[in-house]
Amino acid sequence: RCVSTASSFDFTRFPTGIVPRRRRIEGQGPSTATPALRIRPTVLAKGASGHLLRVYDLIAKKRDGKALSAEEVRFLVEGYSAGAIPDYQMAAFLMAVYLRGMTDEETTAMALAMADSGERLALGGPGEVFVDKHSTGGVGDKTTLVLVPLAAECGLRVAKMSGRGLGHAGGTIDKLESIPGLRTDLSIGEMLGQVREVGAAIVGQSADLTPADKKIYALRDVTATVESVPLIAASVMSKKIALGAGAFVLDVKAGRAAYMKTEADAVRLAEAMAAIARLAGRRAIAWVTAMDQPLGQAVGNAIEVREAVLTLKGLGPPDLVDLVVALGAEMLRLGGIESDAEKAKERVRSVLASGRALGRFKALVEAQGGDPDYLDRVASGGEAPDGYAAVPVPAPKGGWVTGIDGGVVGRAAMALGAGRERPGQAIDHGVGVYLYKKTGDRVQAGEPVALAIAPDRARGEEAVARIASAYEIGASPVPRPPLLLARIDSG
Amino acid sequence: RCVSTASSFDFTRFPTGIVPRRRRIEGQGPSTATPALRIRPTVLAKGASGHLLRVYDLIAKKRDGKALSAEEVRFLVEGYSAGAIPDYQMAAFLMAVYLRGMTDEETTAMALAMADSGERLALGGPGEVFVDKHSTGGVGDKTTLVLVPLAAECGLRVAKMSGRGLGHAGGTIDKLESIPGLRTDLSIGEMLGQVREVGAAIVGQSADLTPADKKIYALRDVTATVESVPLIAASVMSKKIALGAGAFVLDVKAGRAAYMKTEADAVRLAEAMAAIARLAGRRAIAWVTAMDQPLGQAVGNAIEVREAVLTLKGLGPPDLVDLVVALGAEMLRLGGIESDAEKAKERVRSVLASGRALGRFKALVEAQGGDPDYLDRVASGGEAPDGYAAVPVPAPKGGWVTGIDGGVVGRAAMALGAGRERPGQAIDHGVGVYLYKKTGDRVQAGEPVALAIAPDRARGEEAVARIASAYEIGASPVPRPPLLLARIDSG
Repeated sequence: RCVSTASSFDFTRFPTGIVPRRRRIEGQGPSTATPALRIRPTVLAKGASGHLLRVYDLIAKKRDGKALSAEEVRFLVEGYSAGAIPDYQMAAFLMAVYLRGMTDEETTAMALAMADSGERLALGGPGEVFVDKHSTGGVGDKTTLVLVPLAAECGLRVAKMSGRGLGHAGGTIDKLESIPGLRTDLSIGEMLGQVREVGAAIVGQSADLTPADKKIYALRDVTATVESVPLIAASVMSKKIALGAGAFVLDVKAGRAAYMKTEADAVRLAEAMAAIARLAGRRAIAWVTAMDQPLGQAVGNAIEVREAVLTLKGLGPPDLVDLVVALGAEMLRLGGIESDAEKAKERVRSVLASGRALGRFKALVEAQGGDPDYLDRVASGGEAPDGYAAVPVPAPKGGWVTGIDGGVVGRAAMALGAGRERPGQAIDHGVGVYLYKKTGDRVQAGEPVALAIAPDRARGEEAVARIASAYEIGASPVPRPPLLLARIDSG
Repeated sequence: RCVSTASSFDFTRFPTGIVPRRRRIEGQGPSTATPALRIRPTVLAKGASGHLLRVYDLIAKKRDGKALSAEEVRFLVEGYSAGAIPDYQMAAFLMAVYLRGMTDEETTAMALAMADSGERLALGGPGEVFVDKHSTGGVGDKTTLVLVPLAAECGLRVAKMSGRGLGHAGGTIDKLESIPGLRTDLSIGEMLGQVREVGAAIVGQSADLTPADKKIYALRDVTATVESVPLIAASVMSKKIALGAGAFVLDVKAGRAAYMKTEADAVRLAEAMAAIARLAGRRAIAWVTAMDQPLGQAVGNAIEVREAVLTLKGLGPPDLVDLVVALGAEMLRLGGIESDAEKAKERVRSVLASGRALGRFKALVEAQGGDPDYLDRVASGGEAPDGYAAVPVPAPKGGWVTGIDGGVVGRAAMALGAGRERPGQAIDHGVGVYLYKKTGDRVQAGEPVALAIAPDRARGEEAVARIASAYEIGASPVPRPPLLLARIDSG
């Protein structure tokens, strides 16, 4: 099941004090006979074509806006991953990429090299296409919790790796862990066994996959080179490729509560990811979707699981249902379950309405050590989990909700304890924000537009003003904003 | 005599594993509860204004094309110099500077912070302006060896720090060390004592000055960020400012044998250096001068000292004399010796013609432990030093010399042993290339245009074809090319 790749290069590190290639401007820097140079290694290796690959030259090439060959990109990724290329050279290269960009061929080479840096899975047998799903992250985005059991119920097998939340955006793994007893730290072997048995698994990211991506991401994180479309695309796709699915449904969020603030930026990222899928011999369908207001009504962990369960019972909020239908239909088509677009959507709608996919979700929860009855309990309970206070947020005035700042709602939920500012921080699964009113809805002055769900009433009351400030209320009606903005097909 | 500056900041390094400010895109990089993060420190310090300075934010600011405040620049330089800011963050910052540039205020802040990182001298007393001279480096550039004793003979006191050669360009210190017994590793105290006694000294760069510049240069050298106008300007001027002169004459070379290939690029660098002088409360006059063919006739070490001695005796080649007159006159004016431009030039010409400045050069040589009689011996000897072979380079055809590639000549001299490819390599002071014919001269086919000066005839003959290839010979006459291209006054 695994493809393991040895390094393509024999890295040579020159001894300290000797640099084979450098230029100097007189009077610039050290030039005495005993230079006080601390930093001196230069790495090079022979490429397949026989020509010499030097880190310095590749930094300069990217700095000057030129495209690197696939071999050159792989040399950098493998050399850095192996510890032969030092952090400072990779940091200079990444900043050059940030400012100069990369071609689709370069991002593909980077994604493939990072995928090859660790274990690689090859999912699916003859005639079976595994379909993976990815979201760039937003507020209230519990789509994975609905889509995975839904797709499994429709006949696909789904092995999903998800992340934790950080900052204002939540993470699927945190939401799932609000279910008592549920484990997400499955080994790759356990994950694959569970997929064979119940058709679906949702687990945390494995340390065995894409170590080069993890190392490069950690460096980007401290060198202000995270928000680069080609680097994001290569990072995401490296994990998708390593996990071994043959096709991907990508949900690229656009708006003020998303990392991509504009639709144009989100389309660029979606196209960059789709190009990698195409050039790597896979298929991807990306939807650019709105992330100005939160998705659905629940923003938190346990309360988002509740909303996912309600959606699986056919009682989901309209925007979440629309997204599930659109993305689910793409999964069914890519997985070969249903080729016609309308029929695929109809099938998703009918499975949702039947409530059958909830059984599949219970099977997944049970297989991962969780209590399946918990799902029934939260579905029949109120908006707030047992033992938590639900403090209403009154509308400051009457009119129509013209917008809700999802970032403000996300940060309010985080401040209540639903999210973390730093990796590793503990969170409170029960807290969050529940939105009664969404953009386009009419409100009366003083009427509750939302709930602050907190460990106690005092903590909830502290959050009320912040949540209220997310609401923009105007004097005239506005339409419900479009959710599905653009569709990109890797072809 | 020294100004020592303590660090302006109290650097705080966050413990590994905790980063106070970061953003993340879901599915991107490490996000499990136990992230495999190796790189985690983030440095911050409180600025004078009370606001918090964070490395990450400053990298991002420069990355986005914004200008940093003087305090922010100083924070980066001091933090890096103190070891509080890691190489990889500085590398990302330097690449952002390379691609985004810096304002004059930023380069000045960088130069001053680097000057403050080590010892700082304050040369000159009441009414006395020390004038420093700097060249960006070229082939056959022995101007310093002429200008320093000349300016001293005209009444200025000159403390000059120079560098060694690397690549195709020579270094003043190597040339001076061809004089038997001469020391260039004077301490700062010895240098200042000698200037008091004989009016002039030429010494190697001190490790005690601008350690931050040395550390940053070493990083630039391995991250492809050397050739940045603001970074070059800040580096050069930091050393000039630390040495403590009040005014600077800058010789910025432009052409195929210079680092700045075009006049426009050289003007940009000259303006950047002049701006730093002005904003740092000093004065600079920069001349952009041609560096296509070598300067003068001698390219080597001992043979360049010989040409300098001949020039000090009034027998110099016309281009070198023109440059010495132009730069020397600027030094006299900046030093308050002679305010009128024409009179200053006339004074330089008359001192050169009188041969008086040679006595000052002998005094300098003797004070630094060298044999002053050596200068008379080389002046009365032939083009090649005793014991060396001089192999003629015949003109491949007749016509007019339309150009000489100084880079080719410089590399031929280096191959003969006059220069080094790597810092620390041993060189042969006696070898070099002597040019009989320069651009604009008429030549007959087979007539010697140059000499290869080598340890033996065989080695000399190996160099002949390469030296000949530097000569471009055309069928029609061309004028002697202009040497003095542009003058920039910091005002």
